[in-house]
Amino acid sequence: MSDATLEREEGARLMPRFDDAGLITAVVTDGTSGDVLMLAHMNREALDMSIATGIAHYWSRSRRKLWKKGETSGALQTIQEMRIDCDQDAVWLKVSVARPEETCHTGRTSCFYRRVELGKPSGELTEVLAKALR
Amino acid sequence: MSDATLEREEGARLMPRFDDAGLITAVVTDGTSGDVLMLAHMNREALDMSIATGIAHYWSRSRRKLWKKGETSGALQTIQEMRIDCDQDAVWLKVSVARPEETCHTGRTSCFYRRVELGKPSGELTEVLAKALR
Repeated sequence: MSDATLEREEGARLMPRFDDAGLITAVVTDGTSGDVLMLAHMNREALDMSIATGIAHYWSRSRRKLWKKGETSGALQTIQEMRIDCDQDAVWLKVSVARPEETCHTGRTSCFYRRVELGKPSGELTEVLAKALR
Repeated sequence: MSDATLEREEGARLMPRFDDAGLITAVVTDGTSGDVLMLAHMNREALDMSIATGIAHYWSRSRRKLWKKGETSGALQTIQEMRIDCDQDAVWLKVSVARPEETCHTGRTSCFYRRVELGKPSGELTEVLAKALR
């Protein structure tokens, strides 16, 4: 193993490995229930802002701008803990959400509201998390 | 909202949105503890194999081949539940792992073994999950 790989995997220094688009992936879970809420991406600025403020910031790939999640919807994410993976190209955020029903743009508390039925090659989905009334 | 978007977000049909490299992202959590174990990618074949067999298959971007996780290490992942997100470009797998200490290639039960300390702009990491003895 190279020294660089060893340092990245076992070191105490943040050495994020941004991809060709300048991004790492962020997995966001609810700090209480443990449910996966969403997946998002961070560029250097979003990562720095998240670390500095403790409030989740992402890079919006569709709007091509820094995205303070919840700034308009109210579903601000306060980071309880941030972890980084072995090769430092992904982070895991455990968060508490101010307005959970605004987490997904469809009006659910998580983006993962449908189950993929196993053993059915055609790919059937079952809704397991309904929209909040609003 | 277009009909295609509505069908993808609210429909009961699997319509995965593979990226330019032909991949979707998979978040893998432990079905018991809820901990995020790893992040991986699936191409069409890996997704189909995972759904058909109930055992997690990924696409190895480094080796450029189908990757039945644990085939050599023994850390096979049995899928308890698979969910897909709103725009169908990510799945969440809740799994049970046959040999948890082989989940991360570094010898941890999760790839996310270091915490990023918040409020420290220099980016300090703290190990929160030690290597298993082996």
